[in-house]
Amino acid sequence: MKAEILKRLRESEHYVSGQQLCEEFEVSRTAVWKVIRQLQDEGYEIEAIRNKGYRILAYPDVLNREAVQSLLKTDWAGRNLVYLSTTDSTNTQAKKLGDQGAGHGTLVLAQEQTGGKGRRGRSWASSSDENIYMTILLRPDIAPVKAPMLTLVMAHSAARTIREQTGLKAQIKWPNDVIVGGKKVCGILTEMSAEIDYINHVVIGIGINTNMKVIPEELREKATSLRLEQGGEIRRADLTAAIVERFESDYALFMETQDLSGLREQYMRLLANRGKEVRIHEVGEEYCGVALGINERGELLIEKEDGTVTEIFAGEVSVRGIYGYV
Amino acid sequence: MKAEILKRLRESEHYVSGQQLCEEFEVSRTAVWKVIRQLQDEGYEIEAIRNKGYRILAYPDVLNREAVQSLLKTDWAGRNLVYLSTTDSTNTQAKKLGDQGAGHGTLVLAQEQTGGKGRRGRSWASSSDENIYMTILLRPDIAPVKAPMLTLVMAHSAARTIREQTGLKAQIKWPNDVIVGGKKVCGILTEMSAEIDYINHVVIGIGINTNMKVIPEELREKATSLRLEQGGEIRRADLTAAIVERFESDYALFMETQDLSGLREQYMRLLANRGKEVRIHEVGEEYCGVALGINERGELLIEKEDGTVTEIFAGEVSVRGIYGYV
Repeated sequence: MKAEILKRLRESEHYVSGQQLCEEFEVSRTAVWKVIRQLQDEGYEIEAIRNKGYRILAYPDVLNREAVQSLLKTDWAGRNLVYLSTTDSTNTQAKKLGDQGAGHGTLVLAQEQTGGKGRRGRSWASSSDENIYMTILLRPDIAPVKAPMLTLVMAHSAARTIREQTGLKAQIKWPNDVIVGGKKVCGILTEMSAEIDYINHVVIGIGINTNMKVIPEELREKATSLRLEQGGEIRRADLTAAIVERFESDYALFMETQDLSGLREQYMRLLANRGKEVRIHEVGEEYCGVALGINERGELLIEKEDGTVTEIFAGEVSVRGIYGYV
Repeated sequence: MKAEILKRLRESEHYVSGQQLCEEFEVSRTAVWKVIRQLQDEGYEIEAIRNKGYRILAYPDVLNREAVQSLLKTDWAGRNLVYLSTTDSTNTQAKKLGDQGAGHGTLVLAQEQTGGKGRRGRSWASSSDENIYMTILLRPDIAPVKAPMLTLVMAHSAARTIREQTGLKAQIKWPNDVIVGGKKVCGILTEMSAEIDYINHVVIGIGINTNMKVIPEELREKATSLRLEQGGEIRRADLTAAIVERFESDYALFMETQDLSGLREQYMRLLANRGKEVRIHEVGEEYCGVALGINERGELLIEKEDGTVTEIFAGEVSVRGIYGYV
């Protein structure tokens, strides 16, 4: 009910009377008043005027279940939302839920991770409680070999939404990072549980350096936060809901063809690597080339120095050029 | 120590003196005696003669940790052995252990499953306590797309070992069953937890209808047990240890090239589908052809009626011809 009342207040331009809320949600005046007090405690500025009702004047950066649910306009993505103030890793939690049978679209959300994971079992610094960590659980009826493309779908959803919500020129660093001004603001980790030809579930985790005011010294060259780049505080619930909504529609585009042909053009516009010299690290091999873009399978197209073009499925790619680590 | 004493008794042609066992394992006479009693309780016939020592006369079909460990001659496969008399599903348990960091080669073994799993989340009848259910946990440093080939590696190990241990003409029904006389005796379920380009772990589960004396009515056309086919009781610990050993060497062959080129010839000799007419069920398509064999990636080669040859990655294949369901 808290999410619904918050939604009503947020969407109304006028005062909403207490009586109206009571009738709408079939609860007592005291129950309504309790919810209003809770919201005020969380930081929402709510004006209460006798004979008029309640009006929301300002809302701060609150990240919790109700804050996101009151904003979310999706059919399935995030409808089942598990909020954990702090957790080891939202991917780990989502995988557990997946093993227990949780449904397609289940979203695990946290503002702090104590055991954040990067690719290949590396750790991912996520000790601040000013960020967004979320993992969406999917049960796509596609071949397991196609699952890696979902990382690119989420990278697109995140980069594009960050642009829209913050005005920052977010770009995608293929395959799984979003950068602003050449520095990482967001990383994506996709994990899959699958049989030979059948996906049990896929989890896509996304960590966003959102309102961190200080980046640890050793990461300062490589990482930044949206707040540091933009100058103002980001409302994390709004950003979260917007990314999940964008992902729902990007995912639908992906599923139409089970590849990236419907998203490729939009993706390319956001691709930081495009036209840049890149160095490819493969097992026992290292070579340079120019990244031309991606194909419909999400592979990075590299023009080698001899003019031939190769397709990179995944692996470690670093972009040289105007950027630092990127 | 129980496994070691059992091993000493089994491998010795003469009496093994109690004093010798005490010294070897640095324990008291009472401790040795206790172990001997336990083994006798489990069904091992052990003769104890004063001034001579102990001698094993006969051993029955005992399936537990020590029985398998006393037989296992491997470097890594099954060295970490988790025995559960009954469990929901050895794959589920192995995946949990994998998530908790259990090492390469960890083996989960049970003689009964209460929630046995077949492919695509189907159930797999495994209520009898006369069978073998085991799952091996692997951490191969290979691309996730290559993991499905491991099902074929295990199918080869199982079929070949069943032949050697029972004399039955076990064959492989591509990709994941072993059959005897056209009926299923063994199914394999491979599951993987992976990132885009990195395998967290692979579990390969194998269920073998071993000493079941009665096959449920509704399965009788499609399934049988080794005992029913061979006529005698199978020592499950011996079969288990032998499959694990064979798998260790087959896996080494696989890892040399990261494909099936080293096992292909041996595999083909055991392939039931070879030269048989098969019906391929694909999404929205169904066609017939003759199975020629597998290629080095483990794909089934099908000669269609128009003479062209296609490669089937996985999916549902049923063989028509002399066999019933196979």
